[in-house]
Amino acid sequence: MSIERLVVIGGDAAGMSAASQARRLKGPEELEIVAFERGHFTSYSACGIPYWVGGDVGARDDLVARTPEEHRARGIDLRLRTEVVEIDVAGRRVRAREVESGAESWTSYDKLVVATGARPIRPDMPGADAAGVHGVQTLDDGQALLDSLARARGERAVVVGAGYIGVEMAEALINRGYQVTVVNRGSEPMSTLDPDMGRLVHRAMEGLGITMVNDAEVTEVRTGEDGRVRSVRTADAEYPADVVVLGIGVSPETGLARAAGLPVGVHGGLLTDLAMRVRGPLADGRVWAGGDCVEVLDLVSGRERHIALGTHANKHGQVIGANVGGGYATFPGVVGTAVSKVCDLEIARTGLREKDARRAGLQFESVTIESTSRAGYYPGASPMTVKMIAERGTGRLLGVQIVGREGAAKRVDVAAVALTARMTVEEMTALDLGYAPPFSPVWDPVLVAARKAAAKVRGGTR
Amino acid sequence: MSIERLVVIGGDAAGMSAASQARRLKGPEELEIVAFERGHFTSYSACGIPYWVGGDVGARDDLVARTPEEHRARGIDLRLRTEVVEIDVAGRRVRAREVESGAESWTSYDKLVVATGARPIRPDMPGADAAGVHGVQTLDDGQALLDSLARARGERAVVVGAGYIGVEMAEALINRGYQVTVVNRGSEPMSTLDPDMGRLVHRAMEGLGITMVNDAEVTEVRTGEDGRVRSVRTADAEYPADVVVLGIGVSPETGLARAAGLPVGVHGGLLTDLAMRVRGPLADGRVWAGGDCVEVLDLVSGRERHIALGTHANKHGQVIGANVGGGYATFPGVVGTAVSKVCDLEIARTGLREKDARRAGLQFESVTIESTSRAGYYPGASPMTVKMIAERGTGRLLGVQIVGREGAAKRVDVAAVALTARMTVEEMTALDLGYAPPFSPVWDPVLVAARKAAAKVRGGTR
Repeated sequence: MSIERLVVIGGDAAGMSAASQARRLKGPEELEIVAFERGHFTSYSACGIPYWVGGDVGARDDLVARTPEEHRARGIDLRLRTEVVEIDVAGRRVRAREVESGAESWTSYDKLVVATGARPIRPDMPGADAAGVHGVQTLDDGQALLDSLARARGERAVVVGAGYIGVEMAEALINRGYQVTVVNRGSEPMSTLDPDMGRLVHRAMEGLGITMVNDAEVTEVRTGEDGRVRSVRTADAEYPADVVVLGIGVSPETGLARAAGLPVGVHGGLLTDLAMRVRGPLADGRVWAGGDCVEVLDLVSGRERHIALGTHANKHGQVIGANVGGGYATFPGVVGTAVSKVCDLEIARTGLREKDARRAGLQFESVTIESTSRAGYYPGASPMTVKMIAERGTGRLLGVQIVGREGAAKRVDVAAVALTARMTVEEMTALDLGYAPPFSPVWDPVLVAARKAAAKVRGGTR
Repeated sequence: MSIERLVVIGGDAAGMSAASQARRLKGPEELEIVAFERGHFTSYSACGIPYWVGGDVGARDDLVARTPEEHRARGIDLRLRTEVVEIDVAGRRVRAREVESGAESWTSYDKLVVATGARPIRPDMPGADAAGVHGVQTLDDGQALLDSLARARGERAVVVGAGYIGVEMAEALINRGYQVTVVNRGSEPMSTLDPDMGRLVHRAMEGLGITMVNDAEVTEVRTGEDGRVRSVRTADAEYPADVVVLGIGVSPETGLARAAGLPVGVHGGLLTDLAMRVRGPLADGRVWAGGDCVEVLDLVSGRERHIALGTHANKHGQVIGANVGGGYATFPGVVGTAVSKVCDLEIARTGLREKDARRAGLQFESVTIESTSRAGYYPGASPMTVKMIAERGTGRLLGVQIVGREGAAKRVDVAAVALTARMTVEEMTALDLGYAPPFSPVWDPVLVAARKAAAKVRGGTR
């Protein structure tokens, strides 16, 4: 039996999960594995970067789940600081360049995994690349930001964008003693929520002393003579800044794959089948892709989406590794669950927002309820707001958003499972959720929302 | 149109929810509502009693969701301290006795709701009724216990039984400064878990200074000359006790219904249809029952169970009220979710234990995994043990048990929804659960368990 070679492009969650899983199923006598990573690190938690920057996580290495040495000890030929610059699909080979020396060489493959991740969107404006302007997508990015913070010794930070990364970075910078201004294009922070729920986050951020500037777009980053950032301008105002963090989202890093002719979708991510194999004749069933560089199927809307999230990347890697290793696994899709926090305010969503539902052509009913995290009489009970969206007519659950203190974030998992199972809100009213006074009111907030949504779908008021 | 009369027997969760819901749908011009309650209170949280006794909840009235006055203000003719002593189903009337005066009278009904609750099981042994021996099922029971604690000024408490109530009462008594011994018939506390998971609870209880005596049955309560409890005896030992709390479970309070000829099941609870109407020709479709006095369908095993839990009682009440009020609602059944805590140890279960699965005739695979509540590097991450049981062959989820610190209890809700949707553990591996470092490892503990269970079902090791 000849030895096959698996080449992996990208050494973080999706790529190295795939490599590790494939290695678990096939030993070096069956499968050679070569992995290229252009940065210094492998298998780290990019989602942990805000907490490292903010000081909750002490050391960079804490974020590393598996070091290059550990991967190598498992028989993976890992080439760090080596960037793949070309995929030759027809020739089944990749061209890689050592970052330091510039030396290039071709490596052939029998199977290829594209796990090139995503890159922070940099606004197209003067000064966007100035010193002191940082994305926080990779561990290298995080290190550069921390170095910059140490060098700048400033007091004022501007965060551009108020999505998950923007909000988490605002908290991180507050924790480091900065005066933080968040400049946000939308009408409220957390545009992954409907604006009425985003408003709750807005209030909480102001309560933390964060200055929120909504409905504003950054037009220029102004620099001093040293080339470092000095301020951020919008159409209406100018905000002094010793450091700027870009939190306006990421886009799939698919330049390499596009150049090779592999298919990408409307969001710029690679398109795969359910086994995470890249679609189309060119890929020839030999190319897999996963993590932040692919689009995934949204099971609620039936459309493709791009979601950069470590938990999906890990699942993709597992699925790819199982298939490459001769097993069988699929990634059926997502329902769009995301959780976050600003200090003790927990923020969660799953499924469709009102505007997603509209875009998907769905008619819906929407309800919002106030409840508490524990029985009202139990010490520490805190308010929780649940918004629930259900399809008109069928009553099928379409989405849930929750904002509150303890227990708000992970409560959304109930809705995530219900969405996966395509439950109606009426069915949800009977869910047998855990109840005890320290953990929930006798009607869990999700059940309260489901009852109200079910009544609205029925046109009644029960 | 003639006015109908609804009679409700029992003024706690199920009965008063039914009455309130019916009143919301039908005004006094259509429906007269008479409710009998033999105690002093209505619509209170029996589940909150341990926290009131332990001092976490300051006042008895905090546990009351709706007072008798509030019910009366809504047009419910509530008769407190009045016990129904006979149901005449053929004559459509009930005989009630005022507890203080002993005066009796008949009240006719068009529709009847039986919500007589449950009563703590009292072991059949000498001294079981002695002063200082307490059940904790009703608010009156809780008050009697607190009065007893104030009178006794003792130091030593014995809790008989180590289920939810026993464990919660042990914590309550520790919080009040008692030396607590728990005498438990089973091999480990929390027999609602498999013994391997119960062992984790055992260890935590010992860590709190609670003396756990397993595999022991109380044979006698010894009293002093004043008739008050002095000690508790088992076959092997004697435990000094200034107060004894019975936590050996409850049984449905169905004497009245049985005497009337209404059908009860193998667990002694009333049998209803999905609309919570009592089965059989005698009830004639006019008699409903809900709460702790009924049996419910276990959706996983397909068998009837008796579960005394406030959240079910409230749901039953809503369903009964909707149907009595001219609407339509059903209670499809339970999956057996229960959560509790001992200090900061959270305990959760849903679905079948190994022995339940065996009893139901199911073959299964069982896995146990260790994970953490948050990303391992995130401050405050604490260990969590998840046990998952799946049907052999189909891979259908049968049950989950979780023991851990923060976030363990309500994580079981994911499994509760998955059970309701009859998901397989393979399907569960792809669930889109909320992930962010403060709330979960990148693979949520439930997903880790699902992956291991799916591999075992497949006979593989992935």
